[in-house]
Amino acid sequence: MQTLTVALGNRSYPIHIGMDLLKQAELIVSHLPQKRVAVITNTTVAPLYLATLTAGLEAHGVEVLPIILPDGEQYKTWETLNSIFDALLTHRCERKTTLIALGGGVIGDLTGFAAASYLRGVPFIQIPTTLLAQVDSSVGGKTGINHPLGKNMIGAFYQPQLVLADTRTLATLPARELSAGLAEVIKYGLIYDAAFFDWLEANIDKLRALDETSIAYAVYRSCEIKAEVVAQDERESGLRALLNLGHTFGHAIESGMGYGNWLHGEAVAAGTVLAADVSQRMGLMTAAEVERTRELYRRAGLPDTAPDLGAAKYMDYMGLDKKVEGGRIRFVLLRGIGSAFVSAEVPEADLTAALTHYVHAI
Amino acid sequence: MQTLTVALGNRSYPIHIGMDLLKQAELIVSHLPQKRVAVITNTTVAPLYLATLTAGLEAHGVEVLPIILPDGEQYKTWETLNSIFDALLTHRCERKTTLIALGGGVIGDLTGFAAASYLRGVPFIQIPTTLLAQVDSSVGGKTGINHPLGKNMIGAFYQPQLVLADTRTLATLPARELSAGLAEVIKYGLIYDAAFFDWLEANIDKLRALDETSIAYAVYRSCEIKAEVVAQDERESGLRALLNLGHTFGHAIESGMGYGNWLHGEAVAAGTVLAADVSQRMGLMTAAEVERTRELYRRAGLPDTAPDLGAAKYMDYMGLDKKVEGGRIRFVLLRGIGSAFVSAEVPEADLTAALTHYVHAI
Repeated sequence: MQTLTVALGNRSYPIHIGMDLLKQAELIVSHLPQKRVAVITNTTVAPLYLATLTAGLEAHGVEVLPIILPDGEQYKTWETLNSIFDALLTHRCERKTTLIALGGGVIGDLTGFAAASYLRGVPFIQIPTTLLAQVDSSVGGKTGINHPLGKNMIGAFYQPQLVLADTRTLATLPARELSAGLAEVIKYGLIYDAAFFDWLEANIDKLRALDETSIAYAVYRSCEIKAEVVAQDERESGLRALLNLGHTFGHAIESGMGYGNWLHGEAVAAGTVLAADVSQRMGLMTAAEVERTRELYRRAGLPDTAPDLGAAKYMDYMGLDKKVEGGRIRFVLLRGIGSAFVSAEVPEADLTAALTHYVHAI
Repeated sequence: MQTLTVALGNRSYPIHIGMDLLKQAELIVSHLPQKRVAVITNTTVAPLYLATLTAGLEAHGVEVLPIILPDGEQYKTWETLNSIFDALLTHRCERKTTLIALGGGVIGDLTGFAAASYLRGVPFIQIPTTLLAQVDSSVGGKTGINHPLGKNMIGAFYQPQLVLADTRTLATLPARELSAGLAEVIKYGLIYDAAFFDWLEANIDKLRALDETSIAYAVYRSCEIKAEVVAQDERESGLRALLNLGHTFGHAIESGMGYGNWLHGEAVAAGTVLAADVSQRMGLMTAAEVERTRELYRRAGLPDTAPDLGAAKYMDYMGLDKKVEGGRIRFVLLRGIGSAFVSAEVPEADLTAALTHYVHAI
């Protein structure tokens, strides 16, 4: 087991990464202010891991309230959140009752926002069971739900007490979701660490084959990069915006194609291709670097083109994006592989050209 | 104009108290990161004060989006909150768009929670127009909505950038609501400052007549006491719990009688009489002190008895209260006038006796 600390002053917390951590309930118990938890999970994950987690906790005398939600991004709504509140209130959960998120990003986001809002804040532990959740939503404290007018529009910055990334849980992850998680891993290389990008090019096949050592390193390094960025900029005023590489386009793809049809990581990969293309058009990136990026996506089982929504529809969806300032859209662009920056100065011609270049018919 | 600072490190903010502050838009403009605001108010307050506020802001080049909600505690719900989100998203409000709450406690709580949650947090300014909101919800950062299973169960601790308490707005407040506000003012004397309680006994008639100097002092001293308490304990782990004097019983009264039928301040007054009675039964307070408390409530136009819900129903409602620990109910009790403490050691016999003593038939 490796441990990383996300340094956020009195909201700092550890991330443990390793095999079979789900069976080590003592890692959790030491963080509980009360021997009572609510485990929030979904109908896919519950049959796989809920019994193991519950048995471990109960062996330590912890009372477990399971709350099992339907599975899917389309349930990341107020209605589902409210069903969590209903269960917590009906069972009289208190301010010291810890909420444990057992599942992927949707479960983590819903549970985190429930923990931030229930009784104005209760403790929260994350056990991410997808690669995406392990390398993305487990660091940074972003929680929330979708709104019919936009993704993640309602939420809170709320930090967990602890994250347990059990790499064994990835064994049950569908290959498509593993690839979606790799999109975020590749993103860390692109924005922050050219050497890590090189390492990913050399190890992408091992990662897809779930080689234990490679996976553990990829998760560790991804969390480490994200933690470094978040520690410097918890509330996303500056540096942290770089983590949104590909996300402005990506959210437009997710909205345009309907939530849940494209996986988040797939949309981020395609969105990053568009961002790389814009960067190349602005003279910031070479054609060879754009191609290396697209090649790594292909090898990771990810799209290297975006759906052709039409430039106008993209612009419309992006106008609702949170990363908008003074009516202008701010994009994360690349200065080659390993370095990113935010720009509100993207020429509209370059944008329009990119939105119709690396695209495929819907 | 008097100014008080609520000291919360990098979340500190000023409270300005005085006449006609609503007309001094420059006080607000200096706090805006973007010349755009959404003013959230209700159908009662909008006709009285929205035009004045809007005109002042527009004169400084600030774009104003008005969002007018129905009036009443029964609208402090997710549905109303969501109508705020709908308006903000439809008008593409951004992370730097400030939300201004113009109204009483319900507007402040809803707007504060909307500000805490919209895009995971936008700036927030409070302009409380009721005495209760000026002395209570304007300090402390508590925001939230009700749930069918309990009051204020869902929310956030979220601090405003600024509070403007314009004492002139109290002129349009119904007498019953002024009295409800006085219940909170009296509470500060009871829990923290015997001399302030004495001053209230001497000045209660002037306060009910809206004598400007007396009102300004009462608001200032109330905010000062609350700010002192909150600064020492922002997230309600210890000292701050004392502010809940009368609230455990009071919330039961509000729930038991149906939200909106009893004003919050009325329920707190009646709840405090029950708490004082329990304190007397436990030998912590004299009969004369309980009677002084009840006398001041009567002179303030407040109830001095609670509705007779029956002890069992009270206990049931209180079991859902947020201030519950390890399954036991914690009460705020008085050690005479001017000093309060939290106890989880209330003999059930004293509790049951109090719940059937200073009560009146429903």
